[in-house]
This record gives sequence, structure tokens and C-alpha cells, in this order.
Amino acid sequence: MKKNIYTVFILFLSVQFAIAQRAPRLSSPDVSSDNSVTFRYYAPNSKNVLLSTEILKEPIALTKDDKGVWTVTLSKVKPDIYPYSFIVDGVETDDPNNTYLFANERFKRSVVDVPGNKPLIHSLKNVPHGKISYRFYNSKTLNKTRRVLVYTPPGFNMQESKKYPVLYLIHGGSDTEETWTKVGKANLIADNLIAEGKAKSMIIVMPYGNVRPAPMPDFTKDIINDIIPFIESNYPVYNDSEHRAIAGFSVGGGQTLNIGFTNTDKFAYISSYAPYTATEEFAKNFTNWNPDAKKVNEQLKLFTISVGKDDFLYKSVQANISMFKSKNIEIETLIVPGGHTWMNCKLYLTNTLQQLFK
Amino acid sequence: MKKNIYTVFILFLSVQFAIAQRAPRLSSPDVSSDNSVTFRYYAPNSKNVLLSTEILKEPIALTKDDKGVWTVTLSKVKPDIYPYSFIVDGVETDDPNNTYLFANERFKRSVVDVPGNKPLIHSLKNVPHGKISYRFYNSKTLNKTRRVLVYTPPGFNMQESKKYPVLYLIHGGSDTEETWTKVGKANLIADNLIAEGKAKSMIIVMPYGNVRPAPMPDFTKDIINDIIPFIESNYPVYNDSEHRAIAGFSVGGGQTLNIGFTNTDKFAYISSYAPYTATEEFAKNFTNWNPDAKKVNEQLKLFTISVGKDDFLYKSVQANISMFKSKNIEIETLIVPGGHTWMNCKLYLTNTLQQLFK
Repeated sequence: MKKNIYTVFILFLSVQFAIAQRAPRLSSPDVSSDNSVTFRYYAPNSKNVLLSTEILKEPIALTKDDKGVWTVTLSKVKPDIYPYSFIVDGVETDDPNNTYLFANERFKRSVVDVPGNKPLIHSLKNVPHGKISYRFYNSKTLNKTRRVLVYTPPGFNMQESKKYPVLYLIHGGSDTEETWTKVGKANLIADNLIAEGKAKSMIIVMPYGNVRPAPMPDFTKDIINDIIPFIESNYPVYNDSEHRAIAGFSVGGGQTLNIGFTNTDKFAYISSYAPYTATEEFAKNFTNWNPDAKKVNEQLKLFTISVGKDDFLYKSVQANISMFKSKNIEIETLIVPGGHTWMNCKLYLTNTLQQLFK
Repeated sequence: MKKNIYTVFILFLSVQFAIAQRAPRLSSPDVSSDNSVTFRYYAPNSKNVLLSTEILKEPIALTKDDKGVWTVTLSKVKPDIYPYSFIVDGVETDDPNNTYLFANERFKRSVVDVPGNKPLIHSLKNVPHGKISYRFYNSKTLNKTRRVLVYTPPGFNMQESKKYPVLYLIHGGSDTEETWTKVGKANLIADNLIAEGKAKSMIIVMPYGNVRPAPMPDFTKDIINDIIPFIESNYPVYNDSEHRAIAGFSVGGGQTLNIGFTNTDKFAYISSYAPYTATEEFAKNFTNWNPDAKKVNEQLKLFTISVGKDDFLYKSVQANISMFKSKNIEIETLIVPGGHTWMNCKLYLTNTLQQLFK
């Protein structure tokens, strides 16, 4: 009965928006308790529909039934959170039946959560939860009001006398300030590690790193001259390098290296995940770099680079690791299976959070 | 040069994600300073592409060029924020070139912001900004951890002795807890009205109202027994009815009437926007309703119903208004042009915020 009432309402809306042509609602993605996942897409007139997903290395074809619904089922999927999209006659699209969208400025992709039978480190568990604040700050560098997300840990009180360390955590190129929480689950990973006593209670600042068409160095200035002062004047945080960390993925991993190594007096922890470094800023900072390695190694409590063996940047990242080693910079590496993915990002962050501020 | 480097990176990613077929990046929507808006969609193999937008009452056809790009330009668009979608051979889709998506669980729509030449009440202005906290609370009613957004006004301090009034603000059916901020700009409207001295400093709680397949009355219980206690034990707020307001749009407008009028001892302000009331809960609460009008009118400091003349629920809303009047309940109505839209929602909220807690 209730269902019928809602059906009438949906029909009303369909007329209202003049979309009598709306596609039928399908169950997609359909995650089963045996970790199989079925993807469905309605396209009666299309000739070819592929599923592109980080579950598989290559796109896989869907099969059309006589009602125009294309389907594919993947079995025994390893529990994790995966981005995916459909490629419909050559055009990439997200899944119209899935609310969970990848936060990104270029890719239109959906996300499927395969929870598995036991909680993962990024699962929503019955532990104390921190909160994510969506805030604005004035960037004098970029001459505009910009967005920033601030995770404060469970039990955090703005006015308390206790002070917190801060991790500045940067998304990948074309991602947004929401990608680390919405896809990377940084807040839940922190909640869970703090509850288990494995990570220190800390604040995590997630800025919006895309400053195009302005050049990348402007983001370095924005972090140093605008974001850090904003955080340090608005939150009870330490303001010395030993209580500041910087980390980031992909383009954000390259930004992490640029920002960190031009400011080793400000960050004692630098963690770069699958860094993309083919940029003018990186070339300027590191091509003829001649660091005082002893001093830098004393300033840094931790410098890590993480990458997956199947990452398309793997060789480039290995070259970066070799470069730092050749300059006698102490570096810890985390080389794992997998590609340039947000599944790996969660793994890298889980590792980093347990290393910081100890 | 910088652009070329990024192009290489994007090419890398294209190979990585095996989407050499990705559609070309288009500028869409393209908002000009004369308030014309151009929409573009790439679909070389499609036969018919329509634009469905709340700018126009009916869908409008796009025209295809020889490269497969479909285009339409609307001129002299009234500055506002508008949801829209493309209908491609009968299938509704969002705009793959637009990051700004409508937060909704059923409709896949994009959003275009036509800012105009002078700031609007929902514009990001250079005023003090509140923040939006993304939080979790435990719902005993629904036996799960649920999401809730909490807007705290500029200058808010968790530990201060000052207490705040609270507005509980509910989204429409199939919207999410993010729709009031991401599409309705509730936070910016509050920031601006508070800065102008037109609204009281207040906390705005935006719950997730969809409790399907559970029946709607469960959401009433969730608000009363779980969300209000969560807010009142975690924020410095008043806990009497004269400092509590409830408002909502569409299905949320119906929920507002149900929650408000079954709890007039708890909410002195009830504001319902284009309420959808064809529900069992509404029938149960109001069909044979026999209120003590004098008592209810004393309890309520304000009861408003707002609706647009072109709203598909207009007649139903007028019937509701008549029903309340026939029971001698004092009611203020706001009847304006426009339909069942989020442009009107911003208007209704702007009106309400200036009326609350005075």
C-alpha cells in the first residue's frame, strides 16, 4: 500500500519533469552475501555496453536481454570499495541506478561497496565517530574563498586545552576535496584506528588541490600561507613541524613531495602515494636538487613513498625513490600489489595513520 | 606547457582505465555574463537528445553537429540555481561534463548555477561563514547508525555558555541529507541573512528523511526519540518548544506537518513547503483530526505553508490549507510563482529563516 502511494508520487514527478521517457529503475549494483556483484544498465538501442571497473584489469562486456537491460555478474569479489562506469557505445557514463558517485571533476563514475562478512578497516563500525566539517577559508594566494574539509576526531572539543597534531591530506588530480572521505573513507579509517588505539587522535585537513588553470606552485603557497594559518587560528592544534604531516595521492602525491621538501622545517612527516611528478614544479624542485641530507633526515621523522606494482606510474615512482636515495634522503617504501586505485589509497592511509606523531 | 603535461597525464589515465573510448571533454554548461547558458552533450550515435531543465516548463531539443556534439543555448536565464538533465534516446542522464550533481537517490540530474551580476541571497559572499558538520548518530528507532548534517552559524563555539535555537530541516522524497546544502544552499542563505541581521543565529539540523522500506511514521519517531536527543546532548541548544522549529519540502513538507502537529508541545514553528500529503501517516493524523485549536494556536508561534502556483501539488496544498483553516488553526501562507522546484525551496527557506525565533 505504502509502495503504491510512492509509485503514484513518482508518476506525478515524472509528469512534472516531463520525463515520461525515464528509464526503468533497476537494481544495480546488486551485491550478494557471497560477494558476487551484478551490474545492470538499460539501453535498448545501444549496440555495445562494457563495464569498466577497478575490480578487473580490463573492461568486460554486458549481455542484453529482450527488454533492453544489459547485465554482467562478477563473482567472488574481494570485499572493498570500487569505482566503476559503463561504456555505452563508446561513451563512458556512471550507473543511473546507483546514488554512490565518485567525487571527481572529470570522470563520471559510480562506486560499489562490497562489505564482505567481517568489518574492514574502512567499515562503519560501532565506535566513537569523529565529524567532518565543510568549511570556507579565504585564500589570499588565489584571491578567492575556497572549500576545505576538516576531520576532527571523536571527543574533540573546539575549546579544550588539549592540542592536536594535524595531517594535511591531498586528493588526486581531478578529484575533489570530498574524495578522501567519500571514496577513501579517511574519516572511518581514522575512527577505527583511533578506537583500536593504533592511531593517535589527530585532525585531518582535506583541501581542494586543483588550482588549474593557475600553476601548481600556487597550491603550495595556498597550503603554507592560507590553509595552515586558517587551521592554526581556528583549531586547538600544535604549530611545530613535529605535529604536522602531509600526504597525498597521484597528483596530490606529487604536490606532497613539492610542498613537503620545500618546507622540511614545517612538516616532519611526508607520505606520498603513487606520486605523479611529471610537472614543471617537480622538475624545478628536484632536477638539480642538492639537499643537506643530514639536516633533512634530522628534520623528518618519517618519509614514505607507497605504490602498487601494477600502478601505471610504478616505474616513475621507482625512479623517484631512487632519486631520493641517491641524495641520501632516508625513505621508507611500501610496495604492494594493485594499481593506481582508491583501494590502494585506503591501504596507504591506513599504514600512514599508524605511523604519525609517535 | 603545463597544459601539455596534464594532457599526457590524462592520456595515461585513459589507458590505465582502458577507456580510450572516453567522450571528448566539452564545456557544459557554459554560463555567459549575459545570463545565456549553453548545454552540450556528446552522442554521435544518438537520434534524439532533449534538455530537461527547471528553467523551462517543457524539455527542449538539442541540435547535433557533424562531430556528434548536441547543443542548445537558452538566453536571458533568470539568475538562480537550476537542476537539469539530458534525455538521450529516451534515457535520462546527467551532464558528464558537469561536476555539480543534484544530491538525489532517484534522479540523475546535474545542476547549473547562473550567478547573475549581483549577489543573490544564496551566493557565496564575503561574510562570516558557518560550517556544516557531517555526523553519525545511533538511531534506536531504526536500529542503525545514520547520517545527519549540522549547520552551526558563524562564531559558533561548542563549549560556549550561549545557547542556540534549532531548525530541523527535511529534504524532499528521494533527496538526501545533502540536498538542502548542495542544491538548496541552506548554509549560505543562513550565513547571508545572519550577516545582514535578518535572521537569528541558529543551528540547522538536516537529517536523512528516507526510511523506506520502513513506513514514514518511523521517521517521526527517529526525529523525536533519536535526532533531537542527539543534538541536545551534543550541542549548546535550548530544549524548549519556542526554540525548536521544523520545516521541509515535498515529502519532507508532509513529514513536517505530521511531525509538527503530533508534537506541538515540542515545535513552536512549523513551516511546510509544497507538502506531499497523500500518505497513510497524513491520513491517519488529519482525516478525523479534531484539534483543540485554541491550545494549538497558543503553542505555535508560527505555522506556514508555502507553495508555487505552478506546483503540480498546488491543488492538494490548497486543500491542506483549507483543512487547517476549517479546524481554526492559524496559518500563514506564501503563494508564489513557480513549480515544485528547488529554486522555490530557497525562496521559502529565505522567508522562514527571517521569521524564526523572534
